[in-house]
Amino acid sequence: MVSISKAFCLLILLIVVGAVRAQERKRAREYGLKIGILLPGKNNAITDVPGVKVGHVTLNEGETVRTGVTAIVPHSGNIFQEKVPAAVYVGNGFGKLAGSTQVQELGNLETPILLTNTLNVANAITALISYTLQVPGNEKVQSVNALVGETNDGYLNDIRGRHVTEVHARQAIQEANEGPVAEGNVGAGTGTVCFGFKGGMGTASRQLTPEQGGYTVGVLVQTNFGGVLQINGAPVGEELKNYLNEQMKAKADGSCMMVVATDAPVDARNLERMAKRALLGLGKTGGIAANGSGDYVIAFSTHPNLRIPHNTQAKTQTVTLLRNDEVTPLFLATIEATEEAILNSLFKAETLIGRDQHRIPALPIEQTLKILKKHDALQP
Amino acid sequence: MVSISKAFCLLILLIVVGAVRAQERKRAREYGLKIGILLPGKNNAITDVPGVKVGHVTLNEGETVRTGVTAIVPHSGNIFQEKVPAAVYVGNGFGKLAGSTQVQELGNLETPILLTNTLNVANAITALISYTLQVPGNEKVQSVNALVGETNDGYLNDIRGRHVTEVHARQAIQEANEGPVAEGNVGAGTGTVCFGFKGGMGTASRQLTPEQGGYTVGVLVQTNFGGVLQINGAPVGEELKNYLNEQMKAKADGSCMMVVATDAPVDARNLERMAKRALLGLGKTGGIAANGSGDYVIAFSTHPNLRIPHNTQAKTQTVTLLRNDEVTPLFLATIEATEEAILNSLFKAETLIGRDQHRIPALPIEQTLKILKKHDALQP
Amino acid sequence: MVSISKAFCLLILLIVVGAVRAQERKRAREYGLKIGILLPGKNNAITDVPGVKVGHVTLNEGETVRTGVTAIVPHSGNIFQEKVPAAVYVGNGFGKLAGSTQVQELGNLETPILLTNTLNVANAITALISYTLQVPGNEKVQSVNALVGETNDGYLNDIRGRHVTEVHARQAIQEANEGPVAEGNVGAGTGTVCFGFKGGMGTASRQLTPEQGGYTVGVLVQTNFGGVLQINGAPVGEELKNYLNEQMKAKADGSCMMVVATDAPVDARNLERMAKRALLGLGKTGGIAANGSGDYVIAFSTHPNLRIPHNTQAKTQTVTLLRNDEVTPLFLATIEATEEAILNSLFKAETLIGRDQHRIPALPIEQTLKILKKHDALQP
Amino acid sequence: MVSISKAFCLLILLIVVGAVRAQERKRAREYGLKIGILLPGKNNAITDVPGVKVGHVTLNEGETVRTGVTAIVPHSGNIFQEKVPAAVYVGNGFGKLAGSTQVQELGNLETPILLTNTLNVANAITALISYTLQVPGNEKVQSVNALVGETNDGYLNDIRGRHVTEVHARQAIQEANEGPVAEGNVGAGTGTVCFGFKGGMGTASRQLTPEQGGYTVGVLVQTNFGGVLQINGAPVGEELKNYLNEQMKAKADGSCMMVVATDAPVDARNLERMAKRALLGLGKTGGIAANGSGDYVIAFSTHPNLRIPHNTQAKTQTVTLLRNDEVTPLFLATIEATEEAILNSLFKAETLIGRDQHRIPALPIEQTLKILKKHDALQP
Repeated sequence: MVSISKAFCLLILLIVVGAVRAQERKRAREYGLKIGILLPGKNNAITDVPGVKVGHVTLNEGETVRTGVTAIVPHSGNIFQEKVPAAVYVGNGFGKLAGSTQVQELGNLETPILLTNTLNVANAITALISYTLQVPGNEKVQSVNALVGETNDGYLNDIRGRHVTEVHARQAIQEANEGPVAEGNVGAGTGTVCFGFKGGMGTASRQLTPEQGGYTVGVLVQTNFGGVLQINGAPVGEELKNYLNEQMKAKADGSCMMVVATDAPVDARNLERMAKRALLGLGKTGGIAANGSGDYVIAFSTHPNLRIPHNTQAKTQTVTLLRNDEVTPLFLATIEATEEAILNSLFKAETLIGRDQHRIPALPIEQTLKILKKHDALQP
Repeated sequence: MVSISKAFCLLILLIVVGAVRAQERKRAREYGLKIGILLPGKNNAITDVPGVKVGHVTLNEGETVRTGVTAIVPHSGNIFQEKVPAAVYVGNGFGKLAGSTQVQELGNLETPILLTNTLNVANAITALISYTLQVPGNEKVQSVNALVGETNDGYLNDIRGRHVTEVHARQAIQEANEGPVAEGNVGAGTGTVCFGFKGGMGTASRQLTPEQGGYTVGVLVQTNFGGVLQINGAPVGEELKNYLNEQMKAKADGSCMMVVATDAPVDARNLERMAKRALLGLGKTGGIAANGSGDYVIAFSTHPNLRIPHNTQAKTQTVTLLRNDEVTPLFLATIEATEEAILNSLFKAETLIGRDQHRIPALPIEQTLKILKKHDALQP
Repeated sequence: MVSISKAFCLLILLIVVGAVRAQERKRAREYGLKIGILLPGKNNAITDVPGVKVGHVTLNEGETVRTGVTAIVPHSGNIFQEKVPAAVYVGNGFGKLAGSTQVQELGNLETPILLTNTLNVANAITALISYTLQVPGNEKVQSVNALVGETNDGYLNDIRGRHVTEVHARQAIQEANEGPVAEGNVGAGTGTVCFGFKGGMGTASRQLTPEQGGYTVGVLVQTNFGGVLQINGAPVGEELKNYLNEQMKAKADGSCMMVVATDAPVDARNLERMAKRALLGLGKTGGIAANGSGDYVIAFSTHPNLRIPHNTQAKTQTVTLLRNDEVTPLFLATIEATEEAILNSLFKAETLIGRDQHRIPALPIEQTLKILKKHDALQP
Repeated sequence: MVSISKAFCLLILLIVVGAVRAQERKRAREYGLKIGILLPGKNNAITDVPGVKVGHVTLNEGETVRTGVTAIVPHSGNIFQEKVPAAVYVGNGFGKLAGSTQVQELGNLETPILLTNTLNVANAITALISYTLQVPGNEKVQSVNALVGETNDGYLNDIRGRHVTEVHARQAIQEANEGPVAEGNVGAGTGTVCFGFKGGMGTASRQLTPEQGGYTVGVLVQTNFGGVLQINGAPVGEELKNYLNEQMKAKADGSCMMVVATDAPVDARNLERMAKRALLGLGKTGGIAANGSGDYVIAFSTHPNLRIPHNTQAKTQTVTLLRNDEVTPLFLATIEATEEAILNSLFKAETLIGRDQHRIPALPIEQTLKILKKHDALQP
């Protein structure tokens, strides 16, 4: 009798906990945070840029596997045959991003983007190559520039086990979807740590007004970095007494992968300039791009008229591009969306226990909101 | 009699205004602002780095001349014969920085740094060359890499008049001093505008603890840029309703020259990494590195054992350098000192009327403090 | 009577010398050299690119002044109001090129290009600013990015005297012309030294066939660098026993400014790629980009539809650009024209005696041709 | 009887062919070519730099597999724990080099370098990670920056089959040796094509005199690129009528991976400068770095005092470095060794038939020597 009632109680408890959790962890904006002066898009996600899809495969298994892979698909067609203008900016190059030099040289992207853990970049490359070779129309393709980013989830995850396989990576591409994007402990963010709290995947977007061009900018981040956390300017890290130690070894290193998508008609040069601004958004959350951080930004434009055909008889391509003078709103949108995407990753991520019983607490919502209120950082 | 009493009253008024002014415009920290988690150096200035000197020549003449020149002198010796390790990072290259490529190639600096207005870079170069050629010991020098930065003060200043002469620039070098540094409407900051308010020169420093290496990082800025002003995280620009207009043409463009000095033993590669972090400090004040902004960072090390002799029989140089793993505290120090230096430029700068009766108001102290209090951004 | 006859003799002598000279020093191709596989344009000069003009002001005065200034004007209109796509590539940054960062950031050029000596860059900047401010239509211009390159002619020239004035520099712009371009000891090449021989200005061009796109690429060089001279592959430096000494201090340093113009519709990104290839042309002459060499390439496109208006209501610009896949012929054209331009500077430059009786011999034509014949490097 | 005599004849024939082959295909220098003015090291190979080892695994199987992998091992210790100063220069980024950004950021290399084909980069990354994780002393390593380059051998090889496995890649590391290095159709060069002829692996070195510093520079190349072949300056490509077609699509694209090793005490900054010079060596062979070429240079120093310990209590490292003024001989050595390494790859590679009966002829030795003699390009 006792054991039954115990099991029952546990069940009830789990249900309640689940309910509370679902209730507890909302996105930053749902708690009253308004980041910046621009408005978000419909889903406040990178998928607000028409055609962009995101897929996560989460590996949260046993006591040691806390990792995953996330795919960002620029458009629904054959990406190799219809490349998109793209750029890569290296904020701090302590990382293993694959495929960057070709993007920088040719100004375009020819695969989906995959994000995963540091030691599984190779499997993700293999997945992108296999995927590309098998897409109808690519039968003669012999060269594929796979773009794969990573952060190091080795504190919570058995990273040396290299658990993300080619199959997982391809699944992330195949299951990628438009619409709302899961955040927190999912996909490539399953095992990441940010500012000493549980990090993860986060996303946000900005919708420019017609006067500003009317374009959308969406950002997706994989947060695994440190510094002194600020939320909407409030010194949350300091007040929670959870930040860099004296030698700045703890809670400093880590990495942040940032992906910026836009439907604005900008070429590789101005995409690189946008990419550079994402670092300012990271800085506003208190990130410091520590020595051991791999802070990379990948930016691409989905504008249909800028697609770069792989095979064509044409020697030239006619494109209509935003003038330099008009890109400032895109810069601000990038900064704001990056800041908010990072915050979303923190607000949505949940406490996680991983390998060797390592435990990383989630950002404590109640205390954080209290601090934010004290600093008048929440909207009424 | 009447005229005498009028003059007398005016005198009294001026004295009072002066007193009030001196009383009114203090540095950010004197108002209770504590930026970041590190402590400032003795003077909270770039000159806290031993040996570094700063000199301003201010041209505030008639109704139209609102400009000047500022010199940063890395050490008191013959800089050409004893070069210092240095780096330049281009945050946004809409600017006319002279001398950057040689610093980037050779990793050193061989002249003082001069900052002035956009159209007077040439006169400053000439001054640095004349100065260098005439320093005893340089009689055979035939090549001088003059490093000169600028921002555009054309809204308040008759910039087309090119009023900063070679004589002014040399004077700034000669009058450079250690100790406290004048801020606000002085030197190269005389006519600049920042976030829609009067900008100018600003400085700050950070002193690392022994555990962090014990080094000093000092930053000097010339602020002439835009965005959405945040002070210690508080949304001052928004609440003062003084920020980017809808098209983001107004109050976005402009430039920021940032000079980072340190006594830490870091070579050009890690100085470049420090330089990159200064942009994060700019971002934290709400700067967005708009299209039309020339955001450049010059960083150098004054460590005596890293001086690079111009003439020597030696084929090698033995240096003791900080390992990559130890530079994170320098990154944070750079971010914090840059943020505070920018804020100091705003707090210290005064309302100025210039050419064509253009008027730029100073940051309104009282209102600003009110906002900061509301956001609990001041120390008790 | 005597004086008349003396004057008469002198006149005859000058005519004869002129004739002999004209006879003696021809361009590389006139001696039977055929560089590469592509054909040159009409004048085998940068001015074969329609609209491009070149002007030299040569200062060859007294015993010590051996310098000058050269202007390259991209088109005949108001360049500031109608900027051209442009790029800068830094082969080796031991040099004082002014204006590079803005060209790299914005991808365009808004002034003529000036080349001069190392210590006169400032006067050339001033000239470009004065010129730009005074062009009708520029009455409100407050910011000018002057692009000025240099090499160091201090061995032959009293460089510390800084003899190139603003007036000379403006004159070079004003006198710039289409058509054949003077080479050798003229303009910015008056006092330069190349491979231990007298260097100077040189130019060449390539005309692509219709199958290759039909575009023209023109190159202008200011040669002041070293290495081990090869002419059309033949080891002329070695056989003349005039090359690097054992320590490689002599005849190694120096600089080479290279300007690449094209009428092909290429934007800044592909112009930068073309610029990079100019270094391969330098390498083929035996240049080694020694430590002390400032090897810079400036590339621009004159294509009329790519002009970037300074003031416009338009938010976008529609451009028709060559696809990446089509730029290889432009790369080869750049390599070949650079190689030939350097050789032209050597073939045309004459023996010069300058300050302190320093003497630099011209490339000895007769001996050189003998070597070239021995190596079957001349066309029949 | 008949069949026996047939087999016997065949055997004799094979022996003869083998003998002839061994006789036929020698290294460039063995035919009398003397590239440049510096002397080669003992083996004229990258392995002349003490401690450097090279290993090839060649996959030449059936009718379609023509590929392989080559390892360059910087020293015999635990490379992860004792990193070497390193740099990467991107000549033309149409390639899939993995690991470049971390080398560029931190200035060091922590794994052997692997070269393979375009679609097998991932397997080589996996091999380097597995290798590193298993080296004794690396039990806690969680982050490995694998440096892997590639060229595309898809014309001769069934590249889509991705035949180079992790096992092959590890084998190349394990079998790496000091001493003479196999060239031509081996390892990563098994299936490559260069200037329309069979390319492959090549190596060369230069030994500086004591006056030049006494250092060694070794270069290894994987040649798979195009242009207009020149051998020691002689226009071999033109005279063999085997070069770019009119549209420059054929025999232009491809890639060249270049690895530069030295025992000179140079840090990442000067290693990058050396790396840049390798492109000049490529240019001297007639390479043009075509649009579709991935031309990358990896440079590292083996100087024992520059090793960077991964784990150490020390906060600083004392290093003795060559001054900028002393690096010119290293630049020349890099240029010459790169040129000669490329030529060695051509001289040593043999005619190969691969997938779909694609056939690429070896450089025809007899005809080539005839051309070289005609141009007096051989030593007596």
